[in-house]
Amino acid sequence: MIGNEIHALAQRLWKINRSITGEGVRKTLAELKNIIPSLQVHSVPSGTSVFDWIIPKEWKVNDAYIVAPNGKKICDFSENNLHLLGYSIPFNGKVSLTELKEHLYTLPEQPNAIPYITSYYKERWGFCLTHEQLESLVDGEYKVFIDSELFDGELNYGEILIKGHSEEEIFLSTYICHPSMANNELSGPTVVTYLAKWLAENEKPRYSYRVIFIPETIGSITYLSLNYKQMKERVIAGFNVTCVGDDRAYSYVPSRDGETISDQIALHVLKWIDPSFVKYTWFDRGSDERQYCAPGIDLPIASIIRTKYGKYPEYHTSLDDLETVVTPKGLDGGYWAIRRAIEALERNKNYSVSILGEPQMGKRGLYPTLSTKTSFNQVRLMMDFISLCDGKTSLLKIADRLNVPIWDLYEFCDKLEEHRLLNVNE
Amino acid sequence: MIGNEIHALAQRLWKINRSITGEGVRKTLAELKNIIPSLQVHSVPSGTSVFDWIIPKEWKVNDAYIVAPNGKKICDFSENNLHLLGYSIPFNGKVSLTELKEHLYTLPEQPNAIPYITSYYKERWGFCLTHEQLESLVDGEYKVFIDSELFDGELNYGEILIKGHSEEEIFLSTYICHPSMANNELSGPTVVTYLAKWLAENEKPRYSYRVIFIPETIGSITYLSLNYKQMKERVIAGFNVTCVGDDRAYSYVPSRDGETISDQIALHVLKWIDPSFVKYTWFDRGSDERQYCAPGIDLPIASIIRTKYGKYPEYHTSLDDLETVVTPKGLDGGYWAIRRAIEALERNKNYSVSILGEPQMGKRGLYPTLSTKTSFNQVRLMMDFISLCDGKTSLLKIADRLNVPIWDLYEFCDKLEEHRLLNVNE
Amino acid sequence: MIGNEIHALAQRLWKINRSITGEGVRKTLAELKNIIPSLQVHSVPSGTSVFDWIIPKEWKVNDAYIVAPNGKKICDFSENNLHLLGYSIPFNGKVSLTELKEHLYTLPEQPNAIPYITSYYKERWGFCLTHEQLESLVDGEYKVFIDSELFDGELNYGEILIKGHSEEEIFLSTYICHPSMANNELSGPTVVTYLAKWLAENEKPRYSYRVIFIPETIGSITYLSLNYKQMKERVIAGFNVTCVGDDRAYSYVPSRDGETISDQIALHVLKWIDPSFVKYTWFDRGSDERQYCAPGIDLPIASIIRTKYGKYPEYHTSLDDLETVVTPKGLDGGYWAIRRAIEALERNKNYSVSILGEPQMGKRGLYPTLSTKTSFNQVRLMMDFISLCDGKTSLLKIADRLNVPIWDLYEFCDKLEEHRLLNVNE
Repeated sequence: MIGNEIHALAQRLWKINRSITGEGVRKTLAELKNIIPSLQVHSVPSGTSVFDWIIPKEWKVNDAYIVAPNGKKICDFSENNLHLLGYSIPFNGKVSLTELKEHLYTLPEQPNAIPYITSYYKERWGFCLTHEQLESLVDGEYKVFIDSELFDGELNYGEILIKGHSEEEIFLSTYICHPSMANNELSGPTVVTYLAKWLAENEKPRYSYRVIFIPETIGSITYLSLNYKQMKERVIAGFNVTCVGDDRAYSYVPSRDGETISDQIALHVLKWIDPSFVKYTWFDRGSDERQYCAPGIDLPIASIIRTKYGKYPEYHTSLDDLETVVTPKGLDGGYWAIRRAIEALERNKNYSVSILGEPQMGKRGLYPTLSTKTSFNQVRLMMDFISLCDGKTSLLKIADRLNVPIWDLYEFCDKLEEHRLLNVNE
Repeated sequence: MIGNEIHALAQRLWKINRSITGEGVRKTLAELKNIIPSLQVHSVPSGTSVFDWIIPKEWKVNDAYIVAPNGKKICDFSENNLHLLGYSIPFNGKVSLTELKEHLYTLPEQPNAIPYITSYYKERWGFCLTHEQLESLVDGEYKVFIDSELFDGELNYGEILIKGHSEEEIFLSTYICHPSMANNELSGPTVVTYLAKWLAENEKPRYSYRVIFIPETIGSITYLSLNYKQMKERVIAGFNVTCVGDDRAYSYVPSRDGETISDQIALHVLKWIDPSFVKYTWFDRGSDERQYCAPGIDLPIASIIRTKYGKYPEYHTSLDDLETVVTPKGLDGGYWAIRRAIEALERNKNYSVSILGEPQMGKRGLYPTLSTKTSFNQVRLMMDFISLCDGKTSLLKIADRLNVPIWDLYEFCDKLEEHRLLNVNE
Repeated sequence: MIGNEIHALAQRLWKINRSITGEGVRKTLAELKNIIPSLQVHSVPSGTSVFDWIIPKEWKVNDAYIVAPNGKKICDFSENNLHLLGYSIPFNGKVSLTELKEHLYTLPEQPNAIPYITSYYKERWGFCLTHEQLESLVDGEYKVFIDSELFDGELNYGEILIKGHSEEEIFLSTYICHPSMANNELSGPTVVTYLAKWLAENEKPRYSYRVIFIPETIGSITYLSLNYKQMKERVIAGFNVTCVGDDRAYSYVPSRDGETISDQIALHVLKWIDPSFVKYTWFDRGSDERQYCAPGIDLPIASIIRTKYGKYPEYHTSLDDLETVVTPKGLDGGYWAIRRAIEALERNKNYSVSILGEPQMGKRGLYPTLSTKTSFNQVRLMMDFISLCDGKTSLLKIADRLNVPIWDLYEFCDKLEEHRLLNVNE
């Protein structure tokens, strides 16, 4: 089960302190490059205008903690990088508990969870901790130490292009900007890494594949501002990959258009993997499809998800971990759902039967020798399939009309092409 | 509440004896002209061919009544103009009760109602009365006196053109041909008069508005025969206005096509005013849409109605009055439903966001300062709205996709246009 | 009731031993020619390539039976031609019961039925009998005698072309290849014969009619291989006619496209004949629509059926008879369903009203004199009908919108055309 390898990679990435910029992003990309060596790492300087936005300063954390009145270190960044508010400015000083509390963030309704909070666009400092810990704090003087830096640096992202027979591209995007969280961070880049590895090591695909690892929002805006014209020409389908690691549900978020080939394929694959998959609408969106599908960009990007961001209790807290939430089985399901979708895109051609009238299958040995009920149904399905190969109907539409998963037709396609009963009208 | 002013106008028009021709029509138009001074009154001579029809003679009533055997006047036209059969020929003579009864019309199932009956195209005389009164009549000699005239005169109608920025027209039609009845007569011309007043006195609208006050059927046929070629070029939407004065229901009658912009707007407005509004079909039609939507005419005219003609018990009787049936509140609802529809037509443009990717709202101060649940929902709705502004989707379609009334979006349009985040693609 | 005549013809055809080739086909066609004298009989030699197939040898049976150990003849072909396996090769010899049983076919679940079995494309011999008879057979020596011949002969089919005003054709196909069975054989050619007779003897139709009587599958493939190019140019609608003789249900099998005019007409006619008719899908197909609708052929052929082949217990057995299963009433229903469909195709024109606005019906005497509820509804229906005659909507679509059978509108069309209120836009 490939889920085990993906889970092991996620464990290796767990402790890295990722944010939208900085060393954590570069370390993460370096780790991925071990598995997909052709990964290119790009950088764009702080201050660069990207559409309506400006790339922020780079953030670096050397150390951060609080010393309680009893002399004990608490909220130690080196123990859990969620303790430090993302993009905290440096601070070094002594404060009363009352003053300190203005900089502490907790979740009273999830008292054992450390929340994940950031302040990219307003300068402040703060710590995140469990509500239980907050309640145990006693009056007295607290020493706060945040050795962080905000400076003109760069924003980084990774990119691979796997060339196929066609210049038309399938686009996969995932994000690397959250610190130690599992479903809403590590499941995305780890699953995508193993998909890229499969694509790169397999025989040359029909389509080209453009795969990117970016910080969310600012990263997709940056990438689009550099590449959207070419993308609009080439990208015929794609998926934003996030939250693909837990084993509790399958879900779908549409593109803005809602009827692109990516949507059709996602809906088909999910229906046949899990008939009770959750179908969200465009108004439930929340990740980089917001940029990819914005008016004027209009890329055909949908999302195949396990349990969606914002829809599970551990979301954006320290409880979103690699033990309880994200599992090898969950990752395996996420990997295969997207792989099924990619395979379906690769195989989704228009076939036409090469003969007028029904072909005589007997003389070609295409009827099974043993006449069981299963083989009868297979023959019936094959004849039904042939009857729909009119050169104008895609394999996906044929599968939908036959009410079978598209992958049940791959063998027919191969066998009938071999017997020259089918032509491909690409 | 404008319903009060409309109701007062209806009271002033109540006693006038309207029919499809004659002094009553002219008096009614003169009264309306007091409110909308630019109203033009047109006349077309009796005997004129209009499509498949001929304009009938003009009808004038000087006096009409019956003297009962006991010497008492009954069915006195001067007391209630419904007593005289519409288009009665003159008659002066003495008749027995048996003979008289051949000329009397009642409603046995509504014994206290005087029915409204006409005979435009066959010459006869008659009186209408309550069934209770009919049953009280005793044997004896009755003196019948009808001093009416049928002569070559004219058919009249009123018309206003309110010029807008565009030569494209919105068309409003209502009728002035029934005597003293409230919902199925006075509600139409009074509501339309106040809509015309609003349009004429407000700033120059986007579209031009053509508003007519005509006798039903023969009037719309006459008007079309004179104007339909120009109307087919200019009229992009419109409503036939009738039965807009009671407070019991909202209703819709489609155009023949059923999917014109008038239909879309009517359905949208009514759904958001009253989710339980009644949706009739083309086969429930019964007013001038029969002419406006006839094959070859094909104007986009739908009807926004309160309780539809033929669907309330007081219809076409003396019980259709300004006390019980038509109320200021009912008229107010009718006025605002059509005004909402007109406003929606005025604002129904295609917007496109001026920025690629999501705009950064924070730097423009477009996020609310106070973060309440309502303000959060408003921000979410605004972002959803922006995400649909692709320049190809009308504001109406966007409102439908967002599942909100179109008028909830007007403020967003204004604010975002002001911040140059939206362009109009007309 | 024409069902009686059709049933009598079926009785005359009952004993003929039909198969996909041979004397039985020719005798059957000769019998039909008595009723439709312009029937042409065609022949194509054995060995001819037709698309992916080859016309098989002709089969002739002189005699066939088994002599049981007690000297009694059983499975006598001259008593019931179903006893002999279709396309049995000759055999003359003595066999034990055990050996014999390898060549015997029964239906254990329908112990009193002789099954209908053939082996066109693999050479073997065999007999079919009731399971009851099989169980009564005792050990001993059986004499088997099959005097059959397989030789290079011909495949025959019948064809009529009834010329109409247009070169556009309606195509009717039915099959003549099963021996003594009633619903799944004789109902088809007998009903089609009487439809052809009606078409040929009536006034010249709007469309031309091409009617063929063929062996199933190999016959339609043969006919198509000779004619499909011309058919693709000319055939605008058509029906494959089979199983139209029992009185238990009405059914529909779509064309592959599913939305051709043949499908629309079939659905409309069946809905109004029997609202509970059975609607099959393309994946329930099983007769010559498999060829007529194959990709690249794409003819608009649907099926109007009583109880479908494979869906009644007597199907393909000796129980499919002219007494219990197929009845005069059943055949009558089948005949009229298809005749209604043909009439609907003939009358399915686009009408436009010749007058702008509503016509004045009174002056033309088009209002009924007696004002009953029925006549009121008829007038209302007529006005609704006129309101839809825009020259762009077919009579079928108008009937569907009015929710009435198309045949309810024929009288209106005739009367209004007569009064020059309707024009035909063909």
